[in-house]
Amino acid sequence: MVKQQLHIVKIGGNIINDEGALFSFLKDFSELDSPKILVHGGGKRATEIAEAMGLKPKMIAGRRVTDEATLEVVTMVYAGLLNKKITAQLQKLNCYALGLSGADANCIVAHKRIVAAVDYGFAGDVDTINSEFIQVILQNNITPVFCAITHDKNGQLLNTNADTIASEIAIAMSNSYEVVLNYIFELKGVLEDIKDENSVIQHINLEKYEQLIESGIITEGMVPKLHNCFNALKKGVQKVNIGDASLIKNTNNLFTSLTIDNFS
Amino acid sequence: MVKQQLHIVKIGGNIINDEGALFSFLKDFSELDSPKILVHGGGKRATEIAEAMGLKPKMIAGRRVTDEATLEVVTMVYAGLLNKKITAQLQKLNCYALGLSGADANCIVAHKRIVAAVDYGFAGDVDTINSEFIQVILQNNITPVFCAITHDKNGQLLNTNADTIASEIAIAMSNSYEVVLNYIFELKGVLEDIKDENSVIQHINLEKYEQLIESGIITEGMVPKLHNCFNALKKGVQKVNIGDASLIKNTNNLFTSLTIDNFS
Repeated sequence: MVKQQLHIVKIGGNIINDEGALFSFLKDFSELDSPKILVHGGGKRATEIAEAMGLKPKMIAGRRVTDEATLEVVTMVYAGLLNKKITAQLQKLNCYALGLSGADANCIVAHKRIVAAVDYGFAGDVDTINSEFIQVILQNNITPVFCAITHDKNGQLLNTNADTIASEIAIAMSNSYEVVLNYIFELKGVLEDIKDENSVIQHINLEKYEQLIESGIITEGMVPKLHNCFNALKKGVQKVNIGDASLIKNTNNLFTSLTIDNFS
Repeated sequence: MVKQQLHIVKIGGNIINDEGALFSFLKDFSELDSPKILVHGGGKRATEIAEAMGLKPKMIAGRRVTDEATLEVVTMVYAGLLNKKITAQLQKLNCYALGLSGADANCIVAHKRIVAAVDYGFAGDVDTINSEFIQVILQNNITPVFCAITHDKNGQLLNTNADTIASEIAIAMSNSYEVVLNYIFELKGVLEDIKDENSVIQHINLEKYEQLIESGIITEGMVPKLHNCFNALKKGVQKVNIGDASLIKNTNNLFTSLTIDNFS
């Protein structure tokens, strides 16, 4: 049986922080034909609210840590303010959306990250995705909208990286769907020349990826990002696209598409 | 066909503001056998956070108004912090819970209250409940947990009275279930003598209700509360119970039970 296509789209601060860009993105997203899932990161509103409340970022050994007060703020802003604003906007656009955190219906169970000698605070690494529930929702023509808050099934909420949530959901759903995972960020794609914003490498397979790393063309921040993408592809995701907000428009063809082999 | 029983339980500030009381209530709630829905109000955390952010309550003609800044805070605190904390606690108690605002899956569509010459700000009066979606959730053995944030289907979130949300959901679900609506508050029930906390009137039907109003035994704040309860009963809800947190325990029998007639 041919699996149905499922689009998972992740957006971050560059879209969320700009009301016009966000609404324009949500319009394009709502027009996607296939079943779809939105994953959103944070944005500057959490920092602004923490500052307004007089909270100072907690730093341990130069690393920013999610302490209890910070966890409270990100839970409020990500799961409350942003998630419900985005959901209400999608309803206006006739996209039948359901805002979710990882605690809801046990969608994303994680555990507090513990690495010897490093305190990450309330940062969560994903253990399981409730793909059964997500499938029930999709089958009812509802679009899940995930924020990056998870829980440990023992009453503790946790702050989790939104890129990771998108790829973990993509991997879990690839048992039932042909999953296309779309990462939207500030660039048009993976660049051949970091100084030329149009030097987008349009297709990268596993072989090309290894060449790009060897030749040093893929720069520092992009290495873990692409590593995670190929991890998702190896675990069953059909395709990963990386680009700016125009990525999900049919008219756009300048973005980077990642697949395991040449057949996509 | 005999309808299945559905318990709807509404809690307010007196439970939410006390962590021990909240956890103890959630334990009792999680042990309820029948399908169930939780509706929670706000509590003092929203006021504390508004104060920490330097916001002053907006008053118009002596009335507190939900202005834009207040709406942002209640959305964060009710739909984010409280709703997700309660949901995570219920998962710990093996109650398979799903936190919801009215924007999620269009669960509660409302309109901005407009009354000539009175500005209520972003206060919403309920128009429709998506009982079809709620039924899908219940049929999947999931317990919905509603906060008191609604939306107008045109992108605007609204602040709505939690008592009203509970009764509107109860009315909407009574087409498919035998609904028992439980209001938990600071007293043991409707009191015969306001100075005696144990003078609970255990059963009130429509006839008795009218007698109690005529005789002046029902005091000011209780009049609209009971009016709403009998409105729900007239529209199909089977029974309304009013009492303190022990109301939902099998062992408790001191609370007020409201029905249209004597047969309950």
